[in-house]
Amino acid sequence: MLEEKAAFIKKAESLKPKLYIKRVRPLLGIPTDKLKAGDSTVFDFGNHFVGRIKLKLSSAGSHQDAPAFIKIKFCENKRELDEDAADYHGWISKGWIQEEWLHIDVLPAVVNVDRRFSFRYVKLEVIDVSSKFSLVVDDIEAETYTSANDECVNKYSGSREEEDLDRVSIRTLRNCMQEVFEDGPKRDRRLWIGDLRLQALANYATFKNNDLVKRCLYLFAGTTDDNGRITACVFTEPNVEGDDTYMFDYSLFFIPTLLDYYNETKDLETVSDLFDTAKRQVELAKECFGPDDIINDSDVMGWCFLDWNLRLNKQAGAQAVYIYCEKALVKLAKYLGKSELAAELCNDVENKVKAAKEKLYDKDLGLFVSGREKQVSYATQAWAVLAGIFDDEVNHEILNRLHEYKNAEKMVTPYMYHHYIEALIKSGNKKLAYDKMCSYWGAMIEKGADTYYELFNPENPYESPYGSSVVNSYCHAWSCTPAYFIRSCGLNKENLYNQLI
Amino acid sequence: MLEEKAAFIKKAESLKPKLYIKRVRPLLGIPTDKLKAGDSTVFDFGNHFVGRIKLKLSSAGSHQDAPAFIKIKFCENKRELDEDAADYHGWISKGWIQEEWLHIDVLPAVVNVDRRFSFRYVKLEVIDVSSKFSLVVDDIEAETYTSANDECVNKYSGSREEEDLDRVSIRTLRNCMQEVFEDGPKRDRRLWIGDLRLQALANYATFKNNDLVKRCLYLFAGTTDDNGRITACVFTEPNVEGDDTYMFDYSLFFIPTLLDYYNETKDLETVSDLFDTAKRQVELAKECFGPDDIINDSDVMGWCFLDWNLRLNKQAGAQAVYIYCEKALVKLAKYLGKSELAAELCNDVENKVKAAKEKLYDKDLGLFVSGREKQVSYATQAWAVLAGIFDDEVNHEILNRLHEYKNAEKMVTPYMYHHYIEALIKSGNKKLAYDKMCSYWGAMIEKGADTYYELFNPENPYESPYGSSVVNSYCHAWSCTPAYFIRSCGLNKENLYNQLI
Repeated sequence: MLEEKAAFIKKAESLKPKLYIKRVRPLLGIPTDKLKAGDSTVFDFGNHFVGRIKLKLSSAGSHQDAPAFIKIKFCENKRELDEDAADYHGWISKGWIQEEWLHIDVLPAVVNVDRRFSFRYVKLEVIDVSSKFSLVVDDIEAETYTSANDECVNKYSGSREEEDLDRVSIRTLRNCMQEVFEDGPKRDRRLWIGDLRLQALANYATFKNNDLVKRCLYLFAGTTDDNGRITACVFTEPNVEGDDTYMFDYSLFFIPTLLDYYNETKDLETVSDLFDTAKRQVELAKECFGPDDIINDSDVMGWCFLDWNLRLNKQAGAQAVYIYCEKALVKLAKYLGKSELAAELCNDVENKVKAAKEKLYDKDLGLFVSGREKQVSYATQAWAVLAGIFDDEVNHEILNRLHEYKNAEKMVTPYMYHHYIEALIKSGNKKLAYDKMCSYWGAMIEKGADTYYELFNPENPYESPYGSSVVNSYCHAWSCTPAYFIRSCGLNKENLYNQLI
Repeated sequence: MLEEKAAFIKKAESLKPKLYIKRVRPLLGIPTDKLKAGDSTVFDFGNHFVGRIKLKLSSAGSHQDAPAFIKIKFCENKRELDEDAADYHGWISKGWIQEEWLHIDVLPAVVNVDRRFSFRYVKLEVIDVSSKFSLVVDDIEAETYTSANDECVNKYSGSREEEDLDRVSIRTLRNCMQEVFEDGPKRDRRLWIGDLRLQALANYATFKNNDLVKRCLYLFAGTTDDNGRITACVFTEPNVEGDDTYMFDYSLFFIPTLLDYYNETKDLETVSDLFDTAKRQVELAKECFGPDDIINDSDVMGWCFLDWNLRLNKQAGAQAVYIYCEKALVKLAKYLGKSELAAELCNDVENKVKAAKEKLYDKDLGLFVSGREKQVSYATQAWAVLAGIFDDEVNHEILNRLHEYKNAEKMVTPYMYHHYIEALIKSGNKKLAYDKMCSYWGAMIEKGADTYYELFNPENPYESPYGSSVVNSYCHAWSCTPAYFIRSCGLNKENLYNQLI
């Protein structure tokens, strides 16, 4: 198994993409201000980029008689410009805050800030010079990176609103496409499978860099633990290594990601290579079920992500994710001609579906419930619909009832919103799906987003699960799917109009 | 004149010294602590050094899942370790505070901190890692620099106290000897003529790097202003350029520095090259005198440094410095056979001496007084003695009276102490000179000094003219002269004992 994993990693590394490099300068040129202690200047690059900056600095006044001490802050959106990192006391590392402190001993100087940042705005603040000289910024240039080829994307023509939704979606995906599909170029800058699955869908509709999906699948398959379990995320620096974080749903998502990849590419060789790894995830997940074919309540089954809503009970959602993924495995087994295995898996699917209908569906409410408290949530219904526990007609009714049900636990991430929209599409309610997409992602655009956020709760736009929005990521892969909805799922006015007539 | 200055700079650059590079590691090895957010560790290199550090860092625990964010602080002495730079609101640039903020994206890493620092202690503080990993320092190494050749220094054998005074003196000089004689390797890291003059004296007694003195003399001669005035300090980066700071005494000190250099080397060619520049300083200084041959009071004559005591009146001291330097010019003129000029200068010296005796000497007090308030100060008496306004006998009495006079303005810098000690020696009071040297510089050694400080007021050890001791320099050239006193002036017990018997 170690040899096989090494071979997977080798294959993944052979697929490492080249990065497209583009040099950009601020939209409005370089102000000629002579900066003294306490002064600052903001450079607006006009759009969201991922890259490194180079500054040309000089002095005005007398000869520089002390090191110039500056702070450079990189901001993905305007709001961050005014946030004070000193106020941050959240639980994830301050190291993510995009700030650098630099001393420049000799001016003029070309200063290469050698870390990669994610930004539209760069704020340069002079902490101190001396009374005898000022700092002058002669030039600032960003060297920006992506492994997405802009030229591969077909132009989409639709309503102004749809074109905006599509454009920001593509920008988000593009800037997360680096040497792997990163979750966010600000944070965590690495490959998470939950993000990968959605990025791959948006990628098929736009950049079509299918080898990058393949690379990422092999990276996950090459970094399973001793049990063969897929990790939630893979590090590629300094060497490829799987994280020691495992999540019930994330491990299982290897399967539908592989299925989507096959559906797009018909690359049966890759499916054949990775099928055992995929199958293993169902075997491991199966251990979480009781004899009644119901998954143990979330408090005993380890972490199942689903959404960043910390009040969310995960039991029913996890059951649905399992069914969804096992069904994907059935398809893969069939593609590989493993009909006996496929039949076995189908049998298990039926048991889990039956148990779900009996024990997790509240007939009086007409909704799925989760956990001891019988919690009703968007996450649970969406996954139940995607899992196809009921047929499309009942699913349609469930989502309509959910829409009317006032006490349902809500969604806080674009990631969960994606699944809700997809559930609406699956159950034939494209009109509501379209409206929800426009209102949710559209609200970010109204707030000036060049890329979609990691977190967006319309009722509390600056919510953060990290204790402060200072470390929130505003270009986050799992929010990039509007282009997929618009281009691949027919969520656009033209299609909806055609359906209605 | 421009061509001549360019030629001087060219000559100076041809004399740029090579730096001796030595790699050092902390005295007690590397602690193996696993550092979490808020933890810090101090590396003690065992002595004062000037150089760059290289860190080898790695992580412990899970795979690094966030940039490690660290702060590195360089301290010349132990007291600085506990000072908080955030408290600094003084009037010179925060840029001098020896601190660096670094993010390390990928561990393990070799981190070359590419700025030069002045330190014995290096404190590494972890601002943040993540809950999943710790930072480990595997190694730290300093690449240290000096243009002083340790092997040139003869061993001095004397009392334990004298050997300590000598050792710290040499260390101070050594670490200030870089590509020029720097004033202080922490701050300002450049060539000031007040420091150069004393460094050259200590250098003749120890390292004997006479070409470095020559280089510095040519740098000053090559960077005079349009009037031919010697600047107080010269920058060498990015190109050689004179500062636009001029001080009455500092410009004149070009002359005795050249004379001392000639006395040591008998290099008449350099004297011949630089004589006109030297002479010009007297011509320019002469403009500050009134028709009574008394210098205008300090408040009208621009800045004369003398000492960092901000209450000090500079009038009488400036008059004495002028006489001292004009006398040096007379000697240089004579060496070049310019007897007519020498006679002219002598005549001017006599006028200035006569005026000083009549108008600046208070017969009742038996002391020189300065300014409208007739201020009595150590600085004024010391310079009056060094200028030889009176003969040795009277000088001896003046300094004895000063010793008894309670209201004299005191000295705050080792620089001014140097001149006081030198005045005591000149007036034949070596015993008091010896005691003063031992008590003043010895008090710094008692406080644990590896090098002598820029500022040291025994009555207020943490005094700073900059608003806070955070930016004080603890290895400062102008305090390096005990080795000169001990080795060249006979300020040691053996010699004093021989004189007494």
